[in-house]
Amino acid sequence: ELLLHLEDVHHADIAEILTEINLEEATYLVKLLDSEKTAEALMELEEGVRERILENLSPKEIASELIEMDTDDAADIISELSFELQQDVISEITDEQHADDIVELLRYDEDSAGGLMAKELVKVNENWSVTGCMAEMRKQAENVTRVHSIYVVDDKNKLKGRLSLKDLLTASSDANISDIYIPNVDYVNVHTEGEEVARIMQKYDLEAIPVVDEMSRLVGRVTIDDIVDFIKDEAEKDYQMAAGISEDVEADASIWRLTRARLPWLILGLFGGLGAVYVMKSFDEALSEYVELFFFTPLIAAMAGNVGVQSSAIIVQGLANDNLKGSLFNRLLKEIGLTLINGVALGTLVIIFGWIVGQPQIVSLTIALSLITVIIIAALIGTFVPIILDKQGIDPAIATGPFITTSNDIFGIFIFFYLAQTILGF
Amino acid sequence: ELLLHLEDVHHADIAEILTEINLEEATYLVKLLDSEKTAEALMELEEGVRERILENLSPKEIASELIEMDTDDAADIISELSFELQQDVISEITDEQHADDIVELLRYDEDSAGGLMAKELVKVNENWSVTGCMAEMRKQAENVTRVHSIYVVDDKNKLKGRLSLKDLLTASSDANISDIYIPNVDYVNVHTEGEEVARIMQKYDLEAIPVVDEMSRLVGRVTIDDIVDFIKDEAEKDYQMAAGISEDVEADASIWRLTRARLPWLILGLFGGLGAVYVMKSFDEALSEYVELFFFTPLIAAMAGNVGVQSSAIIVQGLANDNLKGSLFNRLLKEIGLTLINGVALGTLVIIFGWIVGQPQIVSLTIALSLITVIIIAALIGTFVPIILDKQGIDPAIATGPFITTSNDIFGIFIFFYLAQTILGF
Ligand SMILES: [Mg+2]
Ligand SMILES: [Mg+2]
Ligand SMILES: [Mg+2]
Ligand SMILES: [Mg+2]
Ligand SMILES: [Mg+2]
Ligand SMILES: [Mg+2]
Ligand SMILES: [Mg+2]
Ligand SMILES: [Mg+2]
Ligand SMILES: [Mg+2]
Ligand SMILES: [Mg+2]
Ligand SMILES: [Mg+2]
Ligand SMILES: [Mg+2]
Ligand SMILES: [Mg+2]
Repeated sequence: ELLLHLEDVHHADIAEILTEINLEEATYLVKLLDSEKTAEALMELEEGVRERILENLSPKEIASELIEMDTDDAADIISELSFELQQDVISEITDEQHADDIVELLRYDEDSAGGLMAKELVKVNENWSVTGCMAEMRKQAENVTRVHSIYVVDDKNKLKGRLSLKDLLTASSDANISDIYIPNVDYVNVHTEGEEVARIMQKYDLEAIPVVDEMSRLVGRVTIDDIVDFIKDEAEKDYQMAAGISEDVEADASIWRLTRARLPWLILGLFGGLGAVYVMKSFDEALSEYVELFFFTPLIAAMAGNVGVQSSAIIVQGLANDNLKGSLFNRLLKEIGLTLINGVALGTLVIIFGWIVGQPQIVSLTIALSLITVIIIAALIGTFVPIILDKQGIDPAIATGPFITTSNDIFGIFIFFYLAQTILGF
Repeated sequence: ELLLHLEDVHHADIAEILTEINLEEATYLVKLLDSEKTAEALMELEEGVRERILENLSPKEIASELIEMDTDDAADIISELSFELQQDVISEITDEQHADDIVELLRYDEDSAGGLMAKELVKVNENWSVTGCMAEMRKQAENVTRVHSIYVVDDKNKLKGRLSLKDLLTASSDANISDIYIPNVDYVNVHTEGEEVARIMQKYDLEAIPVVDEMSRLVGRVTIDDIVDFIKDEAEKDYQMAAGISEDVEADASIWRLTRARLPWLILGLFGGLGAVYVMKSFDEALSEYVELFFFTPLIAAMAGNVGVQSSAIIVQGLANDNLKGSLFNRLLKEIGLTLINGVALGTLVIIFGWIVGQPQIVSLTIALSLITVIIIAALIGTFVPIILDKQGIDPAIATGPFITTSNDIFGIFIFFYLAQTILGF
């Protein structure tokens, strides 16, 4: 009876149920329910939960789930298994075409168009007649959840264009496909990066995009539902990277995984802090006469960090969206102008504060001047480090967060004391 | 000749061209090209660029662009105009139905389902016959770029279900719609928040979702291309918020807009820093004997900030994805356990450092112990401030970045000196 009830529930909801019950029950449920339903539910699970359920299934049982999945999902799940288990599972997949397709997809980098695409699509040969291809198309469409577009290829399977269902329905029955197809079609290469695929699909509002190999042969297509997941994942990874979390973890990950994700950045921060200790020690002549300077170091470090993070966040986003225009020199001038405005405003507040607490004016003035200098330099570091990394082919997103705050802490404190020493002469 | 060439270019590319040429040329091009093309290009522009172009057009010219747009896009653009201009433009829209639809959409909050939906959709009455509704459907489909689903309503326009094109084509011609429609359909209310709409569409892999009003009447639908834009925008806003940027700005915004977005958070940070000055001043008895403590304050502040940002980022994402499970008490225990592990690792490094530079052991031990305490408290602040804000109905994302680092700076430094005073007794 429960079974009858669950067969009507959406697979995404089955996935939620699987997450909430215990492992034994979840395994039981996956075995019990029709694979048509559980296959899709398994796809929606978080990797950790899925892994534990699959560990309790035999290769044959896993294969029976994979047979029900689209090739892209099946390949993603197989790639999570150990290498030996992969072989066993693949050999249990009875549909040979499906197994071949999965093996092909396993070759591609998971963040490339090849790694995001599925083999399921509807295509027709340009030389076919409109009436002749109807039966073939219907057969292909059975394996495809949503048709979106019908792709047109030549005898060598090279992508030539696409066909709208409407054109097909309104075409005269003696026409050839080559007479009616639209030769203008957006496509990507198997090696195109996922972020570029997402950018193109977002820009042109596409719901599916065909993927070709190095010989321009049509080998798959990427659909928008997988791009939505990809965009969400990438945004979460960038957000975590900016917060100093180096692995993709959920709030409910184990303490061990969370430590592995968090501790490395904290150690980096600690070394930065110890560097600051060293810098301050080397300026300890100031202690006798200008002890206030030491009280202001956390402020200087915090402002250097905040300004650096602001600048780098704006640049990293500009790089990701490919909308940084203008020369580097103009950017330099702008960043200096911007932080000069902010710096003067903040410096004025520091002078007012010094006046209220009765601090020597020369000290307040020194602190304000150093603050302005520090944040200009912090902004330049925050702006140009990501640009340089990007030019080197390194993901500029790693330059945000702890990396920028830590380096700006040390630079900031050093510049602060160095300028103070120059002005006040201790 | 240029004209002929541009008519073939995709509107998203026209948008890029409009951004790159100067304002006069852009205005000229918009007036020159067919509105069918420029309307969609205008939609793709950044708000600032679009605003400047529209300022150079008459209400009638703006209206002629809006007539070519889908209602959702037209409403978004009108909402950017001044109130008087809005009236003038609407009165110039000759298609009365289109004008009515736009005026209706203007009523909804832009981040709700109502603000994201378009009026364009295909719907049939459950009492119609299959053959009877074909002509009507074809007429409706003309206004809709992609049909996706055919929605079924009753005489009162209440949403009853949906119809697949396939079912319609294979149904016997004397059947009624009520015999063949699928009564199971996902939908949202006009007031459903955009993030919830996105979550539902992502979870169920939908390409369009119908929207109903308070009386369950079908009033529009949200399509996936607009949800992709929404998800991207939200992710960028959260990223900027975490980096202490309070307005949605691009790298190429004016210095004035960038200052407005950045200065408020910097001033908050400055006040935090001045608070830290005050805390350190009140512990200045330590200067004579334990001056090292003052060298360690930037380290303490940095670690408190980093740990707090890590914790809050994980919680804010968990809240956004609605996947925080378990009791608050368990979360408390876990966070303490996690930071205890991290703290002991970091504290050990501090003791090793102290031993290398020949620092008194009791001072190193005090610093290590304080560091552990500070980061536990920092983690708890980072974890529970977002949870409390969320419970209060406030967006927890504002609790990330400068907010957490600033409060953790002060708390951290205070706890550090307070513990040191207790242990060392100065
Ligand atoms: Mg099963
Ligand atoms: Mg894949
Ligand atoms: Mg788009
Ligand atoms: Mg669009
Ligand atoms: Mg897929
Ligand atoms: Mg990225
Ligand atoms: Mg025009
Ligand atoms: Mg809107
Ligand atoms: Mg999905
Ligand atoms: Mg999916
Ligand atoms: Mg739209
Ligand atoms: Mg949000
Ligand atoms: Mg800091």
